[in-house]
Amino acid sequence: MGDILLTRREKDIATVILNRPHKLNALSRELWLRVGKAMQELSSDEALRCIVLRGAGEKAFSPGADISEFSAHRSNRQQARAYGALIQEAMQSIRDCQHPVIAMIQGVCVGGGLELASMCDLRICGESSRFGVPVNRIAITMAYPEIRALIDLVGRATALEILLEGRVFGSQEAKAKGLVTRVVADGEVEKETYATARRIADGAPLANRLHKRFAYRLLDPKPLTEAEVDQGFEIVGTEDHREGYRAFLTKTKPRFKAG
Amino acid sequence: MGDILLTRREKDIATVILNRPHKLNALSRELWLRVGKAMQELSSDEALRCIVLRGAGEKAFSPGADISEFSAHRSNRQQARAYGALIQEAMQSIRDCQHPVIAMIQGVCVGGGLELASMCDLRICGESSRFGVPVNRIAITMAYPEIRALIDLVGRATALEILLEGRVFGSQEAKAKGLVTRVVADGEVEKETYATARRIADGAPLANRLHKRFAYRLLDPKPLTEAEVDQGFEIVGTEDHREGYRAFLTKTKPRFKAG
Amino acid sequence: MGDILLTRREKDIATVILNRPHKLNALSRELWLRVGKAMQELSSDEALRCIVLRGAGEKAFSPGADISEFSAHRSNRQQARAYGALIQEAMQSIRDCQHPVIAMIQGVCVGGGLELASMCDLRICGESSRFGVPVNRIAITMAYPEIRALIDLVGRATALEILLEGRVFGSQEAKAKGLVTRVVADGEVEKETYATARRIADGAPLANRLHKRFAYRLLDPKPLTEAEVDQGFEIVGTEDHREGYRAFLTKTKPRFKAG
Repeated sequence: MGDILLTRREKDIATVILNRPHKLNALSRELWLRVGKAMQELSSDEALRCIVLRGAGEKAFSPGADISEFSAHRSNRQQARAYGALIQEAMQSIRDCQHPVIAMIQGVCVGGGLELASMCDLRICGESSRFGVPVNRIAITMAYPEIRALIDLVGRATALEILLEGRVFGSQEAKAKGLVTRVVADGEVEKETYATARRIADGAPLANRLHKRFAYRLLDPKPLTEAEVDQGFEIVGTEDHREGYRAFLTKTKPRFKAG
Repeated sequence: MGDILLTRREKDIATVILNRPHKLNALSRELWLRVGKAMQELSSDEALRCIVLRGAGEKAFSPGADISEFSAHRSNRQQARAYGALIQEAMQSIRDCQHPVIAMIQGVCVGGGLELASMCDLRICGESSRFGVPVNRIAITMAYPEIRALIDLVGRATALEILLEGRVFGSQEAKAKGLVTRVVADGEVEKETYATARRIADGAPLANRLHKRFAYRLLDPKPLTEAEVDQGFEIVGTEDHREGYRAFLTKTKPRFKAG
Repeated sequence: MGDILLTRREKDIATVILNRPHKLNALSRELWLRVGKAMQELSSDEALRCIVLRGAGEKAFSPGADISEFSAHRSNRQQARAYGALIQEAMQSIRDCQHPVIAMIQGVCVGGGLELASMCDLRICGESSRFGVPVNRIAITMAYPEIRALIDLVGRATALEILLEGRVFGSQEAKAKGLVTRVVADGEVEKETYATARRIADGAPLANRLHKRFAYRLLDPKPLTEAEVDQGFEIVGTEDHREGYRAFLTKTKPRFKAG
């Protein structure tokens, strides 16, 4: 099977693969670390336009943290704190990535797997996917930053329903709850994901990066500085802006270059 | 008919019943007070795992404040302020209750009744339930804390639609608006409510209490203290955590004891 | 065709019409300005109870800013800043209007058109309406206040999906995303809009104005002052409150006069 994390690249779209299919791609300590590193590297690649995050195989995105490691690495408060920091770094690396990230979800997407998917900008799943955060069955909690991300996605009431009931549920309920962006037939998940990645990659990269930055910045209630407010106008006057305007007037397809 | 507020108890699940069926369980001043007191008492009962809040009978959860009392108790600004404080205390007692609370909704759930339900952690209703906040018909307003709770549940735009139009609407629209967690057939409301209460009660109580506390804490934009962030790790190392882990590995049902 | 912006009035309901049907009601600089001025004037008209904002004809609400003007007025950063301020003033005028505002949407509702609609309190559209914000195709961004309004309406994740993918989509998807309040058959848009305006106009105007003010005030995380909290009690003791109470008890229709 090779490395526990694989990175593929086709033109301006990269794919990051959680590659522990014998464990349904459960997130070992090492894998949390590798996700963070991979995202940081890909973020600085200026030629990229979109990233797809997926699990190996069609059975699972990820069932979450590899619980078999808990007795060694998450069995007391101090270890839990260190493990929490590890999770946090992986989660934040996706949000901090300047490129849009799509979670491509097949099969099981539970616990830490769902948390990881929730940090992506879009989530596309198949009909038979399964979702939930049954951590109250093993008496652990989601930490504040992770609950904040879940609330950001589905609202306070639904986040609490998911955590208190601890049910595992299907794709249509996940869609109704706002957990996923869209549900497609199982056989169409890959096709729809990469078609979406293509639509995103064809947009002006400067606009996409600013929109991603703006949307997450607004999660922080701290008032915007004048410099921040002004960032949205930087793009006007760039070559890409002229190209977009020209393409609009001539009804042709624009070719952007992120400058 | 007995007392205007009844409390029942079966094992680790308590039921609080608004018991004024001849008035569709309208909330008199006395009843608002009693709800607050009952929730505070039940919250401190460490043997409890979940609370169900319901109206007596199948015709109504509650149509809201008992308007026939308004000429005596809510007819000028000073009285309105005192009445508002009363409502606020009842509402807050549900949110402050350390145990998860489920609103079991049959029939009318309008005005202050809907506000009370909106403070519960989950809301389960029957197909024929009716919802709305037509307070602009009698020229009163929801106070800020109540509107904040409604916005928390359904978003700013839907909250304002409900308040400005003053329409009373059915269960499917309530579900689409995010007002209720789920809708079931009228004959299934009680069964689904207690099955949900059971699922919740079977989860680790420390995890449920922390998740409830965390989710509401995040409504406050005040930055988290280090001590707060650390609360999520307290559970690791407890007996319940060891029990949950053991049960997970042995694929048996865990038995938690909140410690 | 007449003036680019028309104002109509029938009893206590006013209608503001974007009137550039040959351009699908595209928002020229002049039209952004005129929207702001019209809303400010109508807001101070104490006899009004509700405002409908619509495009001329049935083909479009508005496709957004008139891009043909961009080479003259939005081609460098300084111009973009000035143009942004213009948009902002028009947007804010709707939110600041003391009367509830309904966007009546037929056909195209895209870009700045969608932004304008998103500032209204309710949005009613026809089945064949089309929505989207494909600004990354011309390499411009939505500014912070506009993104904040979009997030307020549909949540962070959906706002970012709309901006990153740049897709134009139909009314059912817009409803599922929370972009519109309700979808009706194309031939029913006008009827449903004015029936809704009537329901709103029949409510106590003081309650409607306070509810609108409260709901938007809560978007600001700044703590409420005691005076603000007290505003909700001002209405109790007014003549309208007595009228509403009398009408409730006698089961007649109240006649309010905003005092």
